[in-house]
Amino acid sequence: MTATVNRQVLLKSRPEGIPESRHFQIVESALPTLVGNRVLVRNLYLSVEPAMRGWVSAVKNYSDPVPVGGVMRSFAVARVEASRHPDYRVGDLVTGLFGWQDYAVVEAEAIRRKVTETDLPPSTALGVLGINGVTAHYGLLEIGQPRPGETVVVSTAAGAVGSCVGQIAKLKGCRAVGIAGGPQKTQLCTQSFGFDAAVDYKTPDFAQQLAAACGGGVDVYFDNTAGPVSDAVHEHLNIGARVVICGTASVASWDPPPQGPRIERHLLVKRARIEGFVIFDHPEHEDVALHDLAGWLRSGQLRYLEDVLDGIDQAPGAIAGLYRGDNLGKRLIRLTRE
Amino acid sequence: MTATVNRQVLLKSRPEGIPESRHFQIVESALPTLVGNRVLVRNLYLSVEPAMRGWVSAVKNYSDPVPVGGVMRSFAVARVEASRHPDYRVGDLVTGLFGWQDYAVVEAEAIRRKVTETDLPPSTALGVLGINGVTAHYGLLEIGQPRPGETVVVSTAAGAVGSCVGQIAKLKGCRAVGIAGGPQKTQLCTQSFGFDAAVDYKTPDFAQQLAAACGGGVDVYFDNTAGPVSDAVHEHLNIGARVVICGTASVASWDPPPQGPRIERHLLVKRARIEGFVIFDHPEHEDVALHDLAGWLRSGQLRYLEDVLDGIDQAPGAIAGLYRGDNLGKRLIRLTRE
Repeated sequence: MTATVNRQVLLKSRPEGIPESRHFQIVESALPTLVGNRVLVRNLYLSVEPAMRGWVSAVKNYSDPVPVGGVMRSFAVARVEASRHPDYRVGDLVTGLFGWQDYAVVEAEAIRRKVTETDLPPSTALGVLGINGVTAHYGLLEIGQPRPGETVVVSTAAGAVGSCVGQIAKLKGCRAVGIAGGPQKTQLCTQSFGFDAAVDYKTPDFAQQLAAACGGGVDVYFDNTAGPVSDAVHEHLNIGARVVICGTASVASWDPPPQGPRIERHLLVKRARIEGFVIFDHPEHEDVALHDLAGWLRSGQLRYLEDVLDGIDQAPGAIAGLYRGDNLGKRLIRLTRE
Repeated sequence: MTATVNRQVLLKSRPEGIPESRHFQIVESALPTLVGNRVLVRNLYLSVEPAMRGWVSAVKNYSDPVPVGGVMRSFAVARVEASRHPDYRVGDLVTGLFGWQDYAVVEAEAIRRKVTETDLPPSTALGVLGINGVTAHYGLLEIGQPRPGETVVVSTAAGAVGSCVGQIAKLKGCRAVGIAGGPQKTQLCTQSFGFDAAVDYKTPDFAQQLAAACGGGVDVYFDNTAGPVSDAVHEHLNIGARVVICGTASVASWDPPPQGPRIERHLLVKRARIEGFVIFDHPEHEDVALHDLAGWLRSGQLRYLEDVLDGIDQAPGAIAGLYRGDNLGKRLIRLTRE
């Protein structure tokens, strides 16, 4: 089944802000040789993440920048095609940072996990059972620490992380309020994901709508955006509120950082806490999260939406589309019809 | 010993920003009558706190505003002059919110505590063994959670809270860096309070000096100021840093909040946390803190400085002086020569 050509998406030049098609190029390479005790994997789905903007940026960050001329870093779900490692056998389903390409020859350490939820679609290993679901689970439950009856607000609420945060909040007995862009996404929040309310940040009366949706104040804010959307939420923090910083999607450039209202007085008067996290610091949480998430998927208590683009040619423009909000749900590139 | 006149400092008008002399007036009243099971106390020392700006402000806050025409709210250390309550006897030393006045008749519930450290000067009950010391102890140890070898930075470092924070940090095996205004205060930090380094925020090369003093980055920042001083510290946060918001002394008005650089990206990349607290929420911590603080005082490991103004006539202008940085150490008003 192994083809002889490996199509790869390389980083052609380093973008200033959001990576666009022109920053990438697609090349055809020979398959790498299987040496040592490595594993040859064939990617089924490639992931497209907001975090990729950071991965290609030279600005100091939480991971080394992808080198110009290198294969674009990406999570993928893949089948083992050949293996010289005793832990992996042909046919195993695995995930890891296999890159935007058809095939990869990797060390066993590069494999994040063997996917054992074979009753569920393999693509879920990149979204709700991947980095997005685990991020939502860890950030909301470990940092946000919601208590039953509290109000949880999440931005980019219709997205892969946000939709999961809102649903977990509901499962934990909280009131969930989503913030998303446009009526289609706010409807998704309330109708598909079960949020109690959802507010469109693109409407002129966003601040009033948010105030109405958060009448009892905000106890946990899961922040995927930063910027003016978050400024509006900060106005409603309750005493003892927890703000979880997961992403900063609404800010195009942090060099220099944009100006905004200072928040120290809010934090003092409300005895509130703002905390950032990066899920890669918490590998020990993955098993706990996957156990919960897979269980909720099987019982039908957790829903997800995928935005699947067909073929590796779609990859170069896929990140910019994410920042424009073109997608509904977790954005993936499908490479095979398996 | 009881005089027949009670001199009281009343709030005459509500200030927009920092309270000045003109916002207060001094009146002479008759002593209130001792009724019910109340206690008559004679104030020895009155406290002057940065927090008083908030207490007289009508802006939503963590305590009700002092009413115009009312006695200015203040902590005081006092002797019981007469008592109808079984728990208090004539001669007992007590602290509480007795107000800027010579005498107060109070319910037992208004007494914060009976001062039992009679081997130490009574004025310490308002500073290092009062709200300032307990604030430093709780904020640094419970919220900042410093570990030995870490770098702790504190702003208004020569002040009543800041000097205590730096010394506790040293006692816990940390490196202590102070930020203060002017060479006299930075010298105090290093020479009297044992900070490893102190930086003058009023010098033009403050940013460079701070960077040099924090070569290994900042693990805990105990923030009494907010504003540009804090912006400079945020640049140096280490991974996993904790920022404790205790006060916002450098910002004259929060209505509307001033603009500053957004900090979400710092918090995300550094997995850092910013948290506000108000010590009145944590009465259970007082005994623990006083036990430590009094012990360190007796063993000579904890030093303090007092800025004592003589007579109640000094009170009306004393808050503004605090914000100008006129004082060296805890500012107090002495009412008797006891």
